[in-house]
Amino acid sequence: MSTLKPAAEPESNARVKAVFDDIRATRKSDFVNNFWRYLAFDPQLLEETWAGVKSVMAMPSALDPLTKEMLYIAVSMTNACRYCVHSHTAAARAKGMTDDMYADLLRVVSTAARTNQLLNGIQVPVDDAFEADP
Amino acid sequence: MSTLKPAAEPESNARVKAVFDDIRATRKSDFVNNFWRYLAFDPQLLEETWAGVKSVMAMPSALDPLTKEMLYIAVSMTNACRYCVHSHTAAARAKGMTDDMYADLLRVVSTAARTNQLLNGIQVPVDDAFEADP
Amino acid sequence: MSTLKPAAEPESNARVKAVFDDIRATRKSDFVNNFWRYLAFDPQLLEETWAGVKSVMAMPSALDPLTKEMLYIAVSMTNACRYCVHSHTAAARAKGMTDDMYADLLRVVSTAARTNQLLNGIQVPVDDAFEADP
Amino acid sequence: MSTLKPAAEPESNARVKAVFDDIRATRKSDFVNNFWRYLAFDPQLLEETWAGVKSVMAMPSALDPLTKEMLYIAVSMTNACRYCVHSHTAAARAKGMTDDMYADLLRVVSTAARTNQLLNGIQVPVDDAFEADP
Amino acid sequence: MSTLKPAAEPESNARVKAVFDDIRATRKSDFVNNFWRYLAFDPQLLEETWAGVKSVMAMPSALDPLTKEMLYIAVSMTNACRYCVHSHTAAARAKGMTDDMYADLLRVVSTAARTNQLLNGIQVPVDDAFEADP
Amino acid sequence: MSTLKPAAEPESNARVKAVFDDIRATRKSDFVNNFWRYLAFDPQLLEETWAGVKSVMAMPSALDPLTKEMLYIAVSMTNACRYCVHSHTAAARAKGMTDDMYADLLRVVSTAARTNQLLNGIQVPVDDAFEADP
Repeated sequence: MSTLKPAAEPESNARVKAVFDDIRATRKSDFVNNFWRYLAFDPQLLEETWAGVKSVMAMPSALDPLTKEMLYIAVSMTNACRYCVHSHTAAARAKGMTDDMYADLLRVVSTAARTNQLLNGIQVPVDDAFEADP
Repeated sequence: MSTLKPAAEPESNARVKAVFDDIRATRKSDFVNNFWRYLAFDPQLLEETWAGVKSVMAMPSALDPLTKEMLYIAVSMTNACRYCVHSHTAAARAKGMTDDMYADLLRVVSTAARTNQLLNGIQVPVDDAFEADP
Repeated sequence: MSTLKPAAEPESNARVKAVFDDIRATRKSDFVNNFWRYLAFDPQLLEETWAGVKSVMAMPSALDPLTKEMLYIAVSMTNACRYCVHSHTAAARAKGMTDDMYADLLRVVSTAARTNQLLNGIQVPVDDAFEADP
Repeated sequence: MSTLKPAAEPESNARVKAVFDDIRATRKSDFVNNFWRYLAFDPQLLEETWAGVKSVMAMPSALDPLTKEMLYIAVSMTNACRYCVHSHTAAARAKGMTDDMYADLLRVVSTAARTNQLLNGIQVPVDDAFEADP
Repeated sequence: MSTLKPAAEPESNARVKAVFDDIRATRKSDFVNNFWRYLAFDPQLLEETWAGVKSVMAMPSALDPLTKEMLYIAVSMTNACRYCVHSHTAAARAKGMTDDMYADLLRVVSTAARTNQLLNGIQVPVDDAFEADP
Repeated sequence: MSTLKPAAEPESNARVKAVFDDIRATRKSDFVNNFWRYLAFDPQLLEETWAGVKSVMAMPSALDPLTKEMLYIAVSMTNACRYCVHSHTAAARAKGMTDDMYADLLRVVSTAARTNQLLNGIQVPVDDAFEADP
């Protein structure tokens, strides 16, 4: 159940078709997942969102593609975003994340959440040693 | 300003001293940061927390130490934990995170937050293709 | 699947009936949505919650009704509250939110989430110029 | 205290200068707030972030500028982003938000957080009546 | 630094004075903490908020006052609300929370955050055995 | 739908069997809920997580078992963790939480979320009176 009804034929809109074509070309796959199909109700929102995700996740950059997918999972878990957790865990597996790596990711993010709680509770003062701009 | 006053000489407690000694030995440094000094008000809480963090962050595992620090930063940013952001950004830099890598991490986590919002708003149904257990 | 079983005939309780009657009268509709039916397991919780929502959302105030519904959606998306997202998106549409307005709302809240992440990560100092009480 | 040290003369970098010039021109003001000064450590991150914020917040769109600022505040409060709360509350006041409107915004977002909690706790099933795609 | 400037003499407004008087009478103390002093910029917001907090926290109910304060701390830590963490930790101590109890609270809430992360990550299906309404 | 497929016979792994045996012995029940069945894909993650939960939730400590379950619910609601809300509400009921107590818990946590929002919005300065370490 969603808050909007996606168009039956979204690619009848030229702007939507251009984005979908770029998604297929970038990913070398015919599959366009639901996220983009639902965003297509507004071509500008679709274009801006795809441009942002493509630039960060599909272009070479300082971090390797798998590390970027794992960071994406970490944030999505923390924000309780069910769809993002599913789509980016699938993407991470496709890029080589093994069960051992996934288990390790889960160990790190759950430990982070645990100490985040403690520090937001105790309100420990930040050490001067961590100052980036002394 | 914190919710508790740390002991002036926490290591006068033998259980606290044992943990602090292990922190110094594990990290090969004399520096014990405030988090542990404040947790020391309760030796059991200190012991359990350090054991958990040490096992995940200081022991070899499937992910490399820098990737683990970056995942820790990603979760801490999302949970708005100021102390954790500072301590783990400092740790990541100490383990080799360059400005380029840090900028890339910021690009990924802010993009994740952006699409998390969209999906939690539209409530897009998860594609069957992402099913791990068909 | 819920954490409690709603009563089969909640309005057999006079306090519950009084609230449901007020919901119907305030909204000029026979429809009482599930939120209130589940809260009815405790008449005091039901009364307090309805009084709060009615005062803020159903009474004339400085902001117009549609703006208030959109603010409600923005918070509910950020808190990953699936029910609230659905009920308040429906309410906003009923009060005149078009697809164009909804797309714009999604653009704003996803951009806010994006920069919230960056600022919670970098911990940028607040400019003096933003001081409300110099 | 921040996680990075901003450059003393960020505009000695041509890409940074171009963004700062556009910020000043767009806002018709000489003031460039700290957010952009800190993001300037990475010109690509600065360019992408400014392009996103400008497109959504500084260009005419379906919602009026003040409504957009108030939505931005609502998300920033929920994400506990101190900087964003300050900068966007200042921006909303500059665009005409009175004390009465601000109080009303606070009433709505705090009521939303209250019912979000109840619904995430009780896990009330979403009514069929809210279905956008029957 | 706050987003508004509190009135120098808030009690010159009769509605504000009535609320402050009730706070003092309810708490049997002359101290009115900053939260109420800042909310006083809008008497309706002040009245509604105090009425809600008083009804839940200052009136006898099914849970004892200390348990209620500890629940308040747990939510405030999770929402990263610094002020609330401080005010309700002080209130819990005033109502009898010892260091041992505080340490135990911290152990529980940090463990909850840890498993919340795991479950939001793995998306484990809810067992039928937990169904409240079979 | 989950991000991993649990093993058909997880207890064929000796480490998993040892944890499941301990869960059954600790809880004096044959029921092992899905959380542990899914975590079993990685014996180390399973062992560490169970050890943490057992130590905090199943061992006598400063707070009574029911108060600990209610704190767990409060955090899980705030983190929008559907599974945890269901499992810990069921556990709290099994330990004696009545409908009246549950309603009171809901009143407290929803009021906390309401004032958390106000304070994260207004950024009220913390009173000196709350200082634990003057």
